[in-house]
Amino acid sequence: MLVVQKYGGSSVANPHRIRRVARRVVEMHRQGHQVVVVVSAMGDTTDELIELVKEITNDPPKREMDMLLSTGEQVSIALLAMAIKSLGEEVISLTGPQVGIKTDSIHSKAKIIDIDPARLQQELNQDKIVVVAGFQGINKENDITTLGRGGSDTTAVALAASMRADLCEIYTDVDGVYTTDPRMVPEARKLDAITYDEMLELAHLGAQVLHPRAVECAKLYNIPIHVRSSFNHNLGTIVKEVNDMEKDMVVTGVAYDLNVTKIGIFDVPDKPGIAYKIFNALAEENVNVDMIIQSAMRNQVNSISFTVSQSDLKQALNVVETIKDQIGYKGYTHDQDVAKVSIVGAGMVSNPGVAAMMFQALADENINIEMITTSDIKVSCIIKKELAEKAVKALHDKFGLAETGCSAQCS
Amino acid sequence: MLVVQKYGGSSVANPHRIRRVARRVVEMHRQGHQVVVVVSAMGDTTDELIELVKEITNDPPKREMDMLLSTGEQVSIALLAMAIKSLGEEVISLTGPQVGIKTDSIHSKAKIIDIDPARLQQELNQDKIVVVAGFQGINKENDITTLGRGGSDTTAVALAASMRADLCEIYTDVDGVYTTDPRMVPEARKLDAITYDEMLELAHLGAQVLHPRAVECAKLYNIPIHVRSSFNHNLGTIVKEVNDMEKDMVVTGVAYDLNVTKIGIFDVPDKPGIAYKIFNALAEENVNVDMIIQSAMRNQVNSISFTVSQSDLKQALNVVETIKDQIGYKGYTHDQDVAKVSIVGAGMVSNPGVAAMMFQALADENINIEMITTSDIKVSCIIKKELAEKAVKALHDKFGLAETGCSAQCS
Repeated sequence: MLVVQKYGGSSVANPHRIRRVARRVVEMHRQGHQVVVVVSAMGDTTDELIELVKEITNDPPKREMDMLLSTGEQVSIALLAMAIKSLGEEVISLTGPQVGIKTDSIHSKAKIIDIDPARLQQELNQDKIVVVAGFQGINKENDITTLGRGGSDTTAVALAASMRADLCEIYTDVDGVYTTDPRMVPEARKLDAITYDEMLELAHLGAQVLHPRAVECAKLYNIPIHVRSSFNHNLGTIVKEVNDMEKDMVVTGVAYDLNVTKIGIFDVPDKPGIAYKIFNALAEENVNVDMIIQSAMRNQVNSISFTVSQSDLKQALNVVETIKDQIGYKGYTHDQDVAKVSIVGAGMVSNPGVAAMMFQALADENINIEMITTSDIKVSCIIKKELAEKAVKALHDKFGLAETGCSAQCS
Repeated sequence: MLVVQKYGGSSVANPHRIRRVARRVVEMHRQGHQVVVVVSAMGDTTDELIELVKEITNDPPKREMDMLLSTGEQVSIALLAMAIKSLGEEVISLTGPQVGIKTDSIHSKAKIIDIDPARLQQELNQDKIVVVAGFQGINKENDITTLGRGGSDTTAVALAASMRADLCEIYTDVDGVYTTDPRMVPEARKLDAITYDEMLELAHLGAQVLHPRAVECAKLYNIPIHVRSSFNHNLGTIVKEVNDMEKDMVVTGVAYDLNVTKIGIFDVPDKPGIAYKIFNALAEENVNVDMIIQSAMRNQVNSISFTVSQSDLKQALNVVETIKDQIGYKGYTHDQDVAKVSIVGAGMVSNPGVAAMMFQALADENINIEMITTSDIKVSCIIKKELAEKAVKALHDKFGLAETGCSAQCS
């Protein structure tokens, strides 16, 4: 079997942890599998490098930032290769450029265009463990690029796809994907399996274990991903196309997001092109809009509400101000005291009434719903922030997500 | 004019110093010159990386050490490029592999085979300052190599040669090359110029400002080198083919080396091939032998003496023991209480009697000479270690090396 393993920065944060990862890699190899290991930069390395930059300039060229930050993974791969070699296995480390990860030229958030697996295959054929630097690639000018957030996850999945690997294991500091945040709901249960689409919705909604880019890539090439902890040998969560094991479950997980602000523009003329003008102006300023609701009102005027992340609020309000004359609205409000709670589940498609169950659960707790959006596998509601925890617990309970037997945490 | 500048690790040890180097580079560029800058890793970076390795393994593969250590220069070039850019100049950083420095595959002490200056030229043509990582290259397997000790000096001179640069400036933490060690002889004078051969002899003899590999490369391609301080704007020492400015000087400098051990093998049969057997056995164990003296004795037996560095002593004595039966010598001694003092000067070739002057100066101080070797431009003597300082002062004085007017240090 050909396995791609990915270890995040906290799993290789110091020499002790690097040696532990090495033992884990060697264990897999000694079971007779071919192993490609993708690693991130050690713990705080990236932050330390960024601190150095701050002492030099406030406006570093992105190309040079990539040149700088890509050294972090290069240190990790060299040290991990040394640790594996010291256990007696043949091993070689390869940088993103060496492993043939070709990207576009958008420094700091490059996208993988192509992977030439020749060198990787050649080393695997010699029965070597191959350690690959995550997060980085090379553009057509032969310059080093980095893939931005979730880059190492994406490297692992893209390599798994290009090598037609049998499995991609993503090692992280949690045991897998949970039905909801275990810090908020102690009864939260680790899922044994989840579909790509469910994972995408959960990831976008704030579950930080696996980056959406990586999930999209895995879905495209149908690569099963095993999300698991590098700190124990428990089975984690398998992300794959069809979730046979839990097909009875209508709702797979409950997600929440406290980093939300609601902006309402009222008395907007009911004319074609108004929504385009608003949201195009926001996009041009790189404001990421999440939920959008337009409600028809009397007298040919509408009200348009949308949500943005709190970090984008100032920018968003600037845009709204700027377009006032062009749009001709009467006024606007914003409310940071809100949260988004969502239920996610591939089973929703064939189970009408799931959304209604959600609204009922919230109503039973006297929680008022301010905005609603739905997709095939997700229903999200905006509610008052202070009610978020109550809402998540109620929904987790309503959809029977708590484990019946021994909880995942006690194993 | 095309100038290659090289800044060592202490010159870029922290962000403050990196910004100072940036100003210096920009100053040169604004004078209308094309500038290529070669930098080493920041101050202690290499030592810090080696500390990490020690926590992982005692026997790291050399290839992985190169993968690891080459990140040090990559960090430096990115930060220096950012600092230069923040001063408003166009700039690009390039790693050794990117700049086309092709080496053999002897990891940790690779030799440069070829340089493809296409990318470098292309960036210079766009009026960019180019910042290049010293110490590193790429082999034909596309693996990162490092050049070993003096690697960044060598990178700078090799680039200067391949680009047919007009000048190569080596910035260091001293003002240039001195007639002898100023810490030992306060009257020591900074030399305005010195020949390649003199520099080679001085460098091999312990003057640490410029690595012999770099000098050899500069000599081969006739690239003038300006050795100067990065901490002030004083003129340093020009290393070049013919030293016009100081042609009157017979002796250019006095060097000493306290890291010497003398080994004597006595009652060696006077047969052909004996010297070969001894020194071949030493070479096979990588013991670097410096001076060798063979003296004919009565009864067809000889005495052979040689010197090695103190770090090689144990290994050398092992070898001598091992070959005892094969050679058939009677016994051996060793003496660590010795030092080597040398006079160096291209003018010696045409000035007979220089060696005699040296012996006279030592005799006047009652210093006994235990071994002598000579070359065209150097005479070296082994003496008792505790007399080294006295000898160096006497020789410096004898050959009139002290400055007559204001000393270099007071300027």
